[in-house]
Amino acid sequence: MDLTNIENPQFLKHLSKEQLEQLSYDIRQFLIEKLSKTGGHIGPNLGVVELTIALHKVFDSPKDKFLWDVGHQAYVHKILTGRAKDFDTLRQYKGLSGFPKRAESEHDVWETGHSSTSLSAAMGMVIARDIKRSNEHIVPIIGDGALTGGMALEALNHIGHEQKDIIVVLNDNEMSIAPNVGALHNVLGRMRTAGKYNWVKDEIEYLIKRVPAVGGKLASTAERVKDSLKYLFVSGMFFEEMGFTYLGPVDGHDFNDLFENLNYAKKTKGPVLLHVMTKKGKGYHPAEKDKVGTWHGTGPYKIDTGDFLKPKLVAPSWSKLVAETVRNLAREDRRIVAITPAMPVGSKLEGFAKEFPDRMFDVGIAEQHATTMAAGLAAVGMKPFLAIYSTFLQRAYDQMVHDICRQNLNVFIGIDRSGLVGADGETHNGIYDIAFLRHVPNIVVMMPKDENEGQHMVNTAIKYNDGPIALRYPRGNGLGVELDDQLTVIPIGSWEVLRDGSDAVILTFGTTIQMALEAADQLEKNLKLSVRVVNSRFIKPLDGDMLAEIYQEGLPILTIEEAALQGGFGSAVLEHAQENGYDPLLIKRMGIPDYFVEHGSVNLLLEEIDLTKEKVMENLRLMIQKKDRKKIL
Amino acid sequence: MDLTNIENPQFLKHLSKEQLEQLSYDIRQFLIEKLSKTGGHIGPNLGVVELTIALHKVFDSPKDKFLWDVGHQAYVHKILTGRAKDFDTLRQYKGLSGFPKRAESEHDVWETGHSSTSLSAAMGMVIARDIKRSNEHIVPIIGDGALTGGMALEALNHIGHEQKDIIVVLNDNEMSIAPNVGALHNVLGRMRTAGKYNWVKDEIEYLIKRVPAVGGKLASTAERVKDSLKYLFVSGMFFEEMGFTYLGPVDGHDFNDLFENLNYAKKTKGPVLLHVMTKKGKGYHPAEKDKVGTWHGTGPYKIDTGDFLKPKLVAPSWSKLVAETVRNLAREDRRIVAITPAMPVGSKLEGFAKEFPDRMFDVGIAEQHATTMAAGLAAVGMKPFLAIYSTFLQRAYDQMVHDICRQNLNVFIGIDRSGLVGADGETHNGIYDIAFLRHVPNIVVMMPKDENEGQHMVNTAIKYNDGPIALRYPRGNGLGVELDDQLTVIPIGSWEVLRDGSDAVILTFGTTIQMALEAADQLEKNLKLSVRVVNSRFIKPLDGDMLAEIYQEGLPILTIEEAALQGGFGSAVLEHAQENGYDPLLIKRMGIPDYFVEHGSVNLLLEEIDLTKEKVMENLRLMIQKKDRKKIL
Repeated sequence: MDLTNIENPQFLKHLSKEQLEQLSYDIRQFLIEKLSKTGGHIGPNLGVVELTIALHKVFDSPKDKFLWDVGHQAYVHKILTGRAKDFDTLRQYKGLSGFPKRAESEHDVWETGHSSTSLSAAMGMVIARDIKRSNEHIVPIIGDGALTGGMALEALNHIGHEQKDIIVVLNDNEMSIAPNVGALHNVLGRMRTAGKYNWVKDEIEYLIKRVPAVGGKLASTAERVKDSLKYLFVSGMFFEEMGFTYLGPVDGHDFNDLFENLNYAKKTKGPVLLHVMTKKGKGYHPAEKDKVGTWHGTGPYKIDTGDFLKPKLVAPSWSKLVAETVRNLAREDRRIVAITPAMPVGSKLEGFAKEFPDRMFDVGIAEQHATTMAAGLAAVGMKPFLAIYSTFLQRAYDQMVHDICRQNLNVFIGIDRSGLVGADGETHNGIYDIAFLRHVPNIVVMMPKDENEGQHMVNTAIKYNDGPIALRYPRGNGLGVELDDQLTVIPIGSWEVLRDGSDAVILTFGTTIQMALEAADQLEKNLKLSVRVVNSRFIKPLDGDMLAEIYQEGLPILTIEEAALQGGFGSAVLEHAQENGYDPLLIKRMGIPDYFVEHGSVNLLLEEIDLTKEKVMENLRLMIQKKDRKKIL
Repeated sequence: MDLTNIENPQFLKHLSKEQLEQLSYDIRQFLIEKLSKTGGHIGPNLGVVELTIALHKVFDSPKDKFLWDVGHQAYVHKILTGRAKDFDTLRQYKGLSGFPKRAESEHDVWETGHSSTSLSAAMGMVIARDIKRSNEHIVPIIGDGALTGGMALEALNHIGHEQKDIIVVLNDNEMSIAPNVGALHNVLGRMRTAGKYNWVKDEIEYLIKRVPAVGGKLASTAERVKDSLKYLFVSGMFFEEMGFTYLGPVDGHDFNDLFENLNYAKKTKGPVLLHVMTKKGKGYHPAEKDKVGTWHGTGPYKIDTGDFLKPKLVAPSWSKLVAETVRNLAREDRRIVAITPAMPVGSKLEGFAKEFPDRMFDVGIAEQHATTMAAGLAAVGMKPFLAIYSTFLQRAYDQMVHDICRQNLNVFIGIDRSGLVGADGETHNGIYDIAFLRHVPNIVVMMPKDENEGQHMVNTAIKYNDGPIALRYPRGNGLGVELDDQLTVIPIGSWEVLRDGSDAVILTFGTTIQMALEAADQLEKNLKLSVRVVNSRFIKPLDGDMLAEIYQEGLPILTIEEAALQGGFGSAVLEHAQENGYDPLLIKRMGIPDYFVEHGSVNLLLEEIDLTKEKVMENLRLMIQKKDRKKIL
């Protein structure tokens, strides 16, 4: 059928099972084709086609409420709620979001991006429903990976205790982004493959065997005992202990199994956990056979071969540069241990893991634990490297403050995906870490201008033994510069003049340096203005000596950062100027303003927020004019 | 014995059980007597006397490592490691800390204050030990309350998965600070009282009964089946499922039971969970009979009666004022739901809970869940009041950003214990919330000058329907002002002139207003300087109109905040001035500098950081002089 004709999920009510099978096929073809052009989270969505259809057939959205944990698996839900026509704009500027969005549809009742929030939010909606005495079903859909996030476990604990009606759909594909880890994962594994958990059964069988045979009666009793035990021990005991009625495991690609269990869940009082087994990438061979997470989220690809249409790369990814430099250093420094919360592939730690399997820990989606575990390692003399995305470090703010910085422990935090991330949108932007770390005592925060400086900064961080040190690096690839053979240590708090100039100074770091250099060159060429560009690679502490020199010269200062403006790097410069009696009116700050910047290509977003070369040039021109006017007056 | 003679725990090795019983008695008497003068966490420490002695006898600290979760139960550990002599200075300025401190003793290997960090830190130390191939025991001691914190559950998941040697001591007193909640609590309850968990046993007994009787043999088999089941279902199945060897429950006041199980744990490979039952307040009648948490942490008290020696109070506590105002409003506003993460008593929500049992949720130590559950409630039209201490809101920073503020949901966040908290020290200071919230889009942050304004602000927050709104209030009691009968709504972003003046302006809010007013009065009296004092009750957004007037007048501005200086309120004013072309050199910012301020009385701490009336006067005098000089030049 033409999926773009779908207005809402009502049409599903009248479809036969055969028609639903056909619809599943059509949706898969639609996704495979559309995403081959736009890219997107293909694997997770191919896995939940039947589940999403079944949910919309059995329940009545938007009265009944679906909460998609993480949210990148809501494409099928978007198709069934009238948004197929928008898929050409998926994850593009002003286009369809890759995540649920309340503004997009009344069927999107909860926005996500970060993992493990759906159970807590659902519990809020359950409480609201019961106070209002209405009767809608609240149905969070959470993956087995997201379930290990601490806040999801907090929520399970509360939901099990309250015993209110809620249907938790556990979408178990045995993967989060990478393959899952953790004891809970093992618990789920035992539930999946009932036969494997044998010791209790064996003991009971031993006991039963010792009961004298009395014909068929005992055999059937023994069977019942075994069944009972099997049910209890392998199927959901963990969740039953937590206060849930456990249903499953259900084949997530079998409509009969899904309907039967969803309908049963609908009638069951109290919290239900419906354990649905799905296969990531189902129906598209390259994605289906993926074992490491390559097909979790992708760029455009060739449908027939599954080859990615990546632009030719001239430089290594930032993640790889950092991870591989740490790996090289780890050969001589036995203190180094690498930690990732569920991102071994994203953080490019595969090489490290292969070479040092005993010194690499993927703790699953558990940023808090990862961060404090790093603190524990440092407390006994190790040098942990915590690789974590900026946006996910938000989850571990308290652990940064209370455990790492307060105890002034030697943890090296690699803040990956710093800055705007583009297509993933506002939930994934790494633009707050400066503002939420800068006020924390003891920490050093730095960001390199290119890969070569990046590798020296990794070395600097490893050699630094006076407390926590964080290295920010952006999403994507480096500039392709040559890498020095010998690693050096960069003095903490030292900035670097990249281009001299006597009319004004730009203070900036990381991704915005290129823009600054180009603006300065153009101002020189067009207007004979001489602009200094400083690589302000240490965001904390600032380079007080260099600032003092600039104050001496009385130069206008433009700060540029691809980060939140309030409380950011520019504010640090402003505070410093004010404390040192330098006229802060000579300072202007460029950065990300006080609203949530949505998805789109980074270049378009930078234009939207006026973080462009043209604006840099305009600002500098005005600042220099103003200063000259002041001189004349 | 004279406990002040203890230098280290070695002496325990030679003591008989009788001598240990005597030592327990001596320690209890010592604690009851010392804490009657200094105050402190009496309940938790009386509960772990035998446990702590047993740990130090069975293990060898500091080689073996104890990690005290939360840490307020480490007094006995401090006594046994040579610090009894310092108890007169407990929790006082430059005195003995109420929590483990690495600088105090080599036996304190991990610092705490916030809950649920010990398992993650211990796992870090376990990994370090195994890499170093040393053989020390790592022993985190965690309460049943702290175990429900998400990061502890994340850690359990990881520890169970890795299967490395670690001994987790679960100190189960059926309370956290208040009585515990949550499904896990129920799980523990079943473990405690094995007999109560009957349904499985019943089913099996039903089956067994149907097996024809064949003499004594079946009976004993049935018994074995029952025993086996009982063990599995009531004793530790949950932890066994998570990959732990479960030992217990152990009587935490019986040395034989403790020694036997600790020694067994010591020999067991892989992760062990030792479930120890203790009684909070054990050995001191008033504390022992406490059911709500009054004796968790106290001020000084009369030993014989257990009466608290509280100074006579003239005003209600801030927590009570806020909670009771919410309660009053809840009578007419059915949208209001109150949420607390384990602090129903501290946040004074008992009255609300009594009147609206269906609209009050204590979710346990689970700040992340509490915060996102509030978002879920707001997403469907409710008006949740989340009462949370400033320092614990740090745990929910990402939930504030990603769930509440990004979706711009109508959550009312009551930020309790804002500012310096005194005796609890650096882990509990509420001084970062401004810096970590100010850069988040959509949120309103305010702080009242007195209880009357406080109640109007509660009303303002409840009536506000344009997004999240946070009300900061300090620890302790109000000023004793009269309360208006009619509640009003304060215009968002409006400041208030408390005292007029034409030479300079103080911008401040909350607790520092009194100091500002006194300084202004004294400057008027002594030096004829006329200083305006503005109640800058909205920290975000600022009052742009009032600032514009001040800029117009060209007045020097002094900002004062009992909060971190970097990225704080003063920085907001500085940013605003710079953006609006006002000379920021006319601005000076007072606040908490860039280091962790330790425990002590708030007044002494304010002196240490130069946040005093005298310093305010000095700063103003210099600022006015400088401005006058400028005028003359």
